[in-house]
Amino acid sequence: SEAKAAAKAALKPNNKISGRFFLDAYNYDQNVASVASAGDAQNTVQFRTVWLTMGGDVLENTSYRIWVDVTGGDVKLLDVYLDFAELPVLQNVRIGNFFEPFGMEQLTPNIHLTFMERSSVFNLGRHTGIMAHSDDENANWTYGAGVFVSEHGNAPIEFQDDNDAAALTGRLTWCPWYDEATAGRGVFHLGAAYSYRVLADDNLRFRNRPESFAAPFVVDTGTVGASSYQLVGLEAAYAYGPWMVQSEYHGATVNELGPANDYLDSFYIQTSYFLTGENRYYNRRSGTFANAIVPIENFFRVRTGDCDICTGLGAWEVAYRYATTDLNAGSITGGLTDLHAVGLNWYLSPYTRAMFDYIHSETDTLAANDGVLNALQMRLQYNF
Amino acid sequence: SEAKAAAKAALKPNNKISGRFFLDAYNYDQNVASVASAGDAQNTVQFRTVWLTMGGDVLENTSYRIWVDVTGGDVKLLDVYLDFAELPVLQNVRIGNFFEPFGMEQLTPNIHLTFMERSSVFNLGRHTGIMAHSDDENANWTYGAGVFVSEHGNAPIEFQDDNDAAALTGRLTWCPWYDEATAGRGVFHLGAAYSYRVLADDNLRFRNRPESFAAPFVVDTGTVGASSYQLVGLEAAYAYGPWMVQSEYHGATVNELGPANDYLDSFYIQTSYFLTGENRYYNRRSGTFANAIVPIENFFRVRTGDCDICTGLGAWEVAYRYATTDLNAGSITGGLTDLHAVGLNWYLSPYTRAMFDYIHSETDTLAANDGVLNALQMRLQYNF
Amino acid sequence: SEAKAAAKAALKPNNKISGRFFLDAYNYDQNVASVASAGDAQNTVQFRTVWLTMGGDVLENTSYRIWVDVTGGDVKLLDVYLDFAELPVLQNVRIGNFFEPFGMEQLTPNIHLTFMERSSVFNLGRHTGIMAHSDDENANWTYGAGVFVSEHGNAPIEFQDDNDAAALTGRLTWCPWYDEATAGRGVFHLGAAYSYRVLADDNLRFRNRPESFAAPFVVDTGTVGASSYQLVGLEAAYAYGPWMVQSEYHGATVNELGPANDYLDSFYIQTSYFLTGENRYYNRRSGTFANAIVPIENFFRVRTGDCDICTGLGAWEVAYRYATTDLNAGSITGGLTDLHAVGLNWYLSPYTRAMFDYIHSETDTLAANDGVLNALQMRLQYNF
Repeated sequence: SEAKAAAKAALKPNNKISGRFFLDAYNYDQNVASVASAGDAQNTVQFRTVWLTMGGDVLENTSYRIWVDVTGGDVKLLDVYLDFAELPVLQNVRIGNFFEPFGMEQLTPNIHLTFMERSSVFNLGRHTGIMAHSDDENANWTYGAGVFVSEHGNAPIEFQDDNDAAALTGRLTWCPWYDEATAGRGVFHLGAAYSYRVLADDNLRFRNRPESFAAPFVVDTGTVGASSYQLVGLEAAYAYGPWMVQSEYHGATVNELGPANDYLDSFYIQTSYFLTGENRYYNRRSGTFANAIVPIENFFRVRTGDCDICTGLGAWEVAYRYATTDLNAGSITGGLTDLHAVGLNWYLSPYTRAMFDYIHSETDTLAANDGVLNALQMRLQYNF
Repeated sequence: SEAKAAAKAALKPNNKISGRFFLDAYNYDQNVASVASAGDAQNTVQFRTVWLTMGGDVLENTSYRIWVDVTGGDVKLLDVYLDFAELPVLQNVRIGNFFEPFGMEQLTPNIHLTFMERSSVFNLGRHTGIMAHSDDENANWTYGAGVFVSEHGNAPIEFQDDNDAAALTGRLTWCPWYDEATAGRGVFHLGAAYSYRVLADDNLRFRNRPESFAAPFVVDTGTVGASSYQLVGLEAAYAYGPWMVQSEYHGATVNELGPANDYLDSFYIQTSYFLTGENRYYNRRSGTFANAIVPIENFFRVRTGDCDICTGLGAWEVAYRYATTDLNAGSITGGLTDLHAVGLNWYLSPYTRAMFDYIHSETDTLAANDGVLNALQMRLQYNF
Repeated sequence: SEAKAAAKAALKPNNKISGRFFLDAYNYDQNVASVASAGDAQNTVQFRTVWLTMGGDVLENTSYRIWVDVTGGDVKLLDVYLDFAELPVLQNVRIGNFFEPFGMEQLTPNIHLTFMERSSVFNLGRHTGIMAHSDDENANWTYGAGVFVSEHGNAPIEFQDDNDAAALTGRLTWCPWYDEATAGRGVFHLGAAYSYRVLADDNLRFRNRPESFAAPFVVDTGTVGASSYQLVGLEAAYAYGPWMVQSEYHGATVNELGPANDYLDSFYIQTSYFLTGENRYYNRRSGTFANAIVPIENFFRVRTGDCDICTGLGAWEVAYRYATTDLNAGSITGGLTDLHAVGLNWYLSPYTRAMFDYIHSETDTLAANDGVLNALQMRLQYNF
């Protein structure tokens, strides 16, 4: 009878409400060519992210999420889905709005990113669809494959004019080495992903900022007439104790309306090191460094058994990234940009982080060559 | 002292946070006349509903709700009210934004509707006002009567130009038969409602989709000059075990600015049957089938005392509806439409439902006669 | 080990979710001069405030808030901050979006205001910034001092055109008498505040309604070319049992783009009395009457030890306010307005309040002299 009651309770939905906010400050420095090509970057203090998130489990093998972004005056739907687990063959099936399975950095939660912004211009973001995926915390591989509504944008987007706007996207990762003895302080990750995307309105546009949210777009293809495009992604990452290196290559084959097929691509490689000895935690369910970084000592004060009040340093991490994006090919003249970023991350606790990024970007476009945009940016990040 | 503490705790507000989302897919098929008259229906995948809802009790005899809809980028206020209970004579008084007491299907929560959309063009929706109502779970009757700000729209709307925009609305229901022995597996319901509505801006418009949210409006009066209008509603429903039939008639007398008074009306009758033996639960507090449908067996897996893991079917319900709307009268030429709908509802659990509707609608308007719009639509519904 | 577990739990974020809504009805009466000068005031029933608020503690000495306003279709960020406590010298440091430390009435939570609207045209509202402040519930003084992004508006606002838009704001209060024996039923409060504000876009505008949210602006400087301005504020308050008097003077020195410096000011004095014997509670952490008013008896019914069910009156408070605003100086011709308000507040419980304000305002502007606008307004207020 007690077991019955417990079983019944396990079927009812539970609900955990959380949130996060990122408060950013941006300071820009540009040369004349950059202003002429991309426009004047405005120094800014603003919330980058204010999210209200809820989710939980229902019926033993189903989980759900409703996450909304209220930063900018309107409400954007983020993760809104049901995830059915423990299915035969497929393991899990997820229906709703969520990240397409493409891109290691895209699939890393924003609270655990190494730099303040993601790098690749080809990250797909969240779309509405249905996806089968693995979800095994002890496996040395993951997979995800789904069908999505393919239009760009954060909000769920509709089929248009009875034309298809569907995308097929899949990702496969393999973890040839995972050091069980240290719970993953050593890990080697490889991954590949592919997406085939039909464009309902025959319009395609890629554009990217220099990894700073308030900066102007420095590369921009404008609207390109295209019926579909394909993406390929390659990932590699290696972590050994406090040191980590991660790299991704994304390539896009654009099936333009004329006979031409053009190829665009982007690449980044980044490395980071915890001065205080912590490490990035690899999550074998998702194939990303998605787990929270827990400082050995929190900043401010920690009560321990040894002393009544000890002062801790928090965790300190330094990072460097090189990234390049090439949006020039055939008749597409979106520009070419190279970027160097150095970062300093201070984890006051598992819930609070201060980030400091310095970014130096150089861009060649049709409008002006040798455009230089430098950004110094800070973030106070809190999640609960 | 313990009793005192318990009494004090009962006075404090409690708060339960919940939510729901409906993910819909729509597929349309039209003839030329329908496209000419109503426009081209676009196939769509989109969230129909994403609601965040909170509510609870305060002070032993008062309850409250704050429900918001975040589906579409902005935030719409849904139920936002205080409800004072256990009052002499009136029973309950509710102040805030909520459904006017008109229409059995309107007052049925959207998670318990038989078809994906409500039928009547004359449903009033939520408005800001004050309402007295009964709230007795053992009574064989209910009543509701209130004064509201009368303008159309989902959000609370204001008085305009110092003109009144008030509405008087009331509903009375009677349940001549309720089978106590089976907790309501047999029930017979009758109801009537009335609303008198003053239009502050002297403008009135009725229009309706063919019970599919992304379809165009097939009947539409355009803007009619009118100083007020009156609505009457009649309801009947009968349930016997898994079988249910429900019908409503709504009529509108429009007091136009000229001497004319014109009469518009709509009607539907629907029937449904649970193949798996469940039944729709009549709620005697609200006079609607407002209670959750609990499958005899949940879908996927249920732990029981008899076996470790059993697989259940969930609950399966089939339904049919006929509906007709006549918006032609005198100088009002909104059109005339007939609609047949068949539905299949699969209740995976009390919290999750998949819906499949096929709708065939035929419409005559000034622009074109014999417009045919067929819709095949699906919904994944989750609430917690 | 138990102590260790408790210490660890104290570090994790907790989260309390609450909300509040104010439903208002406004009725206006104007003379011809007022309509000519300010426009026609529209009678209205509407939600003034629908807030969803969450917050809590993390890491023993840090607290956070995410408060959002969903009243008007969009989402406005209210308090969104981290507050680090128990710091040496400064006591507390708060980072995010919150009220600048200026104005006793501004810093009084809206659920505890004596009248439905705040008075001063110079209240600064919330801005994004960083503030040091005291937070001692037993001190007879408070301080707050911070740097903020200075533009007007409720939402966090950005630096513009690489110009500074910074403000320095500070407030100091002193409580020469606080009657400890009665937990503050007797209190005498003095305060002063200052703000220096650089305008990034060289534009400044002050305008104010006659303390009624749906009324038009009766005084309005229009856009004034100015590079910066300074505010001074003086506060005094005295409470003795159920009686309270509170007054503020605000003056603004506008550094106009031409050589002129002009001086604008506003003033109010208000008094209130609880007919039922309660008192306004002074909060020594914030230097305002910020604590909840707890009726001696709740309205409706209270269970006590003496009788099974007793009916209580709730708390009843009467109030009077005189306010004046002078936005005429040099080339600035914003107008001059005087206002008398009487209020009746009925506290049904610590969570529910009905408010009734009658306001008589007289305004002289360039457009018309002797404009009279009277407002009769009601509010149903609920918070949990």
